[in-house]
Amino acid sequence: MSTSAQIGVTGLAVMGRNLARNFARNGYTVAVHNRTVARTKALVEEFGGEGDFISAETAEEFVAALERPRRLVIMVKAGGPTDAVIEEFAPLLEPGDMIIDGGNAHFADTRRREKALREQGIHFVGMGVSGGEEGALHGPSIMPGGPKESYDSLGPMLEKISAKAAKDGAPCVTHVGPDGAGHFVKMVHNGIEYADMQLIGEAYQLLRDVAGYSPAEIADIFRTWNQGRLDSYLIEITAEVLSHVDAATGRPFVDVVVDQAEQKGTGRWTVQIALDLGVPVSGIAEAVFARSLSGHATLRAASRGLTGPEAAPLGKEEAAAFADQVEQALYASKIVSYTQGFHEITAGSEEYGWDIDLGKVASIWRGGCIIRAAFLDRIRAAYDTRADLPSLLSDETFAREIADAQDDWRDVVIAAVRQGVPTPGFSAALAYYDALRAERLPAALTQGQRDFFGAHTYRRVDREGAFHTLWGGDRSEVSA
Amino acid sequence: MSTSAQIGVTGLAVMGRNLARNFARNGYTVAVHNRTVARTKALVEEFGGEGDFISAETAEEFVAALERPRRLVIMVKAGGPTDAVIEEFAPLLEPGDMIIDGGNAHFADTRRREKALREQGIHFVGMGVSGGEEGALHGPSIMPGGPKESYDSLGPMLEKISAKAAKDGAPCVTHVGPDGAGHFVKMVHNGIEYADMQLIGEAYQLLRDVAGYSPAEIADIFRTWNQGRLDSYLIEITAEVLSHVDAATGRPFVDVVVDQAEQKGTGRWTVQIALDLGVPVSGIAEAVFARSLSGHATLRAASRGLTGPEAAPLGKEEAAAFADQVEQALYASKIVSYTQGFHEITAGSEEYGWDIDLGKVASIWRGGCIIRAAFLDRIRAAYDTRADLPSLLSDETFAREIADAQDDWRDVVIAAVRQGVPTPGFSAALAYYDALRAERLPAALTQGQRDFFGAHTYRRVDREGAFHTLWGGDRSEVSA
Repeated sequence: MSTSAQIGVTGLAVMGRNLARNFARNGYTVAVHNRTVARTKALVEEFGGEGDFISAETAEEFVAALERPRRLVIMVKAGGPTDAVIEEFAPLLEPGDMIIDGGNAHFADTRRREKALREQGIHFVGMGVSGGEEGALHGPSIMPGGPKESYDSLGPMLEKISAKAAKDGAPCVTHVGPDGAGHFVKMVHNGIEYADMQLIGEAYQLLRDVAGYSPAEIADIFRTWNQGRLDSYLIEITAEVLSHVDAATGRPFVDVVVDQAEQKGTGRWTVQIALDLGVPVSGIAEAVFARSLSGHATLRAASRGLTGPEAAPLGKEEAAAFADQVEQALYASKIVSYTQGFHEITAGSEEYGWDIDLGKVASIWRGGCIIRAAFLDRIRAAYDTRADLPSLLSDETFAREIADAQDDWRDVVIAAVRQGVPTPGFSAALAYYDALRAERLPAALTQGQRDFFGAHTYRRVDREGAFHTLWGGDRSEVSA
Repeated sequence: MSTSAQIGVTGLAVMGRNLARNFARNGYTVAVHNRTVARTKALVEEFGGEGDFISAETAEEFVAALERPRRLVIMVKAGGPTDAVIEEFAPLLEPGDMIIDGGNAHFADTRRREKALREQGIHFVGMGVSGGEEGALHGPSIMPGGPKESYDSLGPMLEKISAKAAKDGAPCVTHVGPDGAGHFVKMVHNGIEYADMQLIGEAYQLLRDVAGYSPAEIADIFRTWNQGRLDSYLIEITAEVLSHVDAATGRPFVDVVVDQAEQKGTGRWTVQIALDLGVPVSGIAEAVFARSLSGHATLRAASRGLTGPEAAPLGKEEAAAFADQVEQALYASKIVSYTQGFHEITAGSEEYGWDIDLGKVASIWRGGCIIRAAFLDRIRAAYDTRADLPSLLSDETFAREIADAQDDWRDVVIAAVRQGVPTPGFSAALAYYDALRAERLPAALTQGQRDFFGAHTYRRVDREGAFHTLWGGDRSEVSA
């Protein structure tokens, strides 16, 4: 056995296989290993010509094939399987070696694993990878966390295999922060991805039901939008999906697909963790709820008879004007989604002491990942200009854009409400915007009610301290 | 020491103390115990005349004072303190004895504790109690879970101390279901309470900012609403809070309270568990988010300059008409909140095999608890008529009411959107309603996108099976 592999990948399903090929195609010698040996052999047989692979049949062979300090990437299912692989390999490693988890782990698991392995002197890197199978092969966006020193030797390799931002060629990878920071940021990436997809879905539905466009016409509209500030991978593939015609029926593809969206765990986690951190992520939550609602087939079937307004599609000229308004609404709602997502990253970074650079996060999402978009370069610029922005909406450019968009944004939500087209994402984003800028919120009434029924006390606008009103008595106020 | 106590209460903070007094006032002999003995003494000194108390200084004395099988109620903080008290008392108990946790435990903790104690032959009853301190003393709504047989001896006592429904005098307590069912239902109760309070807050804000009413005038409007179908404790106390004038400043009380709402854990849990169960509870989520948003003072201060529409309060006659519309919007949104909450209970009941009777749940919320309302008797009736209702909205009466309300509901949301008043709860409820009744949802597009970037496959409306389109190839379709 040669011991010359600079990196090893265990778990050779499509993501692991493509990541291994990506390393090999970039000149690294890659040790490959899989529980089922056949998969390892298949990889080397099919793609061996792309670079230098060392095929390992056993865990011991795999570890022996790696240069020291060893860099061992595990690409297996999150949860139990990841723990099992760590338990298998950790005893074979030495202090200074590195285990890199490239799966979609929950950041709390990553924190636990990092802590346990740290005690054995092993560097554990929780590494978010986005871009699907194509990204893994041709250049993903990579979000590694873990000990900073691990990045010294691992970073340059990741920079080589990562996507490069179209604008400046910068590699889409950075050391995000200690322990679970990488997987946390990957989680929020996915939450934002849910929101982006939901907002696109709402725009589509409005163009279809309110403006009366066909899927093919809507595809053209998305293609046009993709030339402007909405330029992004998701807008691009929306046009592809909407223009696709089902060969079997000749109908628009989107009309033959069952309208029940599925999900894995990361969108849900984003909302659950935001709730723990006290961060309002209503846009992301509505996206997750929209998917789960869509899947409740029985409930939906029982509800189709509920009364709603008659749809009254617009005339041709009005439709074109409305499409422009929808672009404004989509863009404004998108700014809000990202505001909420970045707020969650800020809160996580503060809670766990990660010191995450938000500009860097925006920067490495510019290429390779599912939410890649020209827009992200502007977020990078906003945080590079002012790292301590209270929120994205505090950036002058975004604030001005949303100010310009807001009349149309409101008109679009009004049209949706009037015609009975569900736009939970647009509506939640707008309500968030209006709540954030409100001089006073009804939360004061909420506090009054809580003090009334539970003696939970309240604060006053004119004095320090906590107070309670004797609601059941003479209604005088006492210091609490 | 006498051993004649039919029930014991340990943990004599205000809720525990009042529950103990409630038992005593209903003729039971109550053993009382507290970690700090002074509190036990204070209770007996101050309230000893209300009934028969047996004061216990140690855990051993406390247990010895109880009739067998022992019924031991613990009223301490959820989490670690509850575990500590269980660990202290369990070794002193015998098979057939009962530990009743009346705190706000997470139902997953209750499941864990019930399982552990069951192995020792001890019956563990996780018991939700709602009604605040007044309720605990005069009659709360009680939601006990745990082994059915425990209810045989405990139930009659709880029925005696519980609230009684105004309509028919039925006690507001029932055996909710096994293990964590009681605390689960209490959790959802609190989630619905959050939503109710948020909707009331939005109604208030609209009456203030759009209709131009003063808090005192709004109090009168709520008083009127409290005579109709919105008749409920929260509407009643809203009128009290809004009509209250701050003695120190002469200003409306609601204007001197800091508009940052606080929260404990149960609203957040309701949303987090709903996400795990795949149940859309957008109205409850928006209520939780609204509270957390209100507390982000720095963010709000930085956002007050964001552009919004000018408010243009209505004239007097229009205002009165608008107030009627707000009542419709509030009522319709409330139906949606309860629909979502009951959906979550159904899903939890299915997931954990609890076989919860939804009509019974509605019935025991009719009195004693924070969300008590005339409305709940109608929910009871709906489920009593048809236990397998797909959702509350499938009930003919509610469907008709929401049909009647919907034009006004839409007008109110439109007014809010146009004038920049945040109504996340009203908007989310309406979007949920429109999504549920939609013939087709953009989820089909979502599935197309997921298949495009992640080969996640989709189903077809016209054939069984899972399919994948070769997006990167000739775009033909393959079975997956």
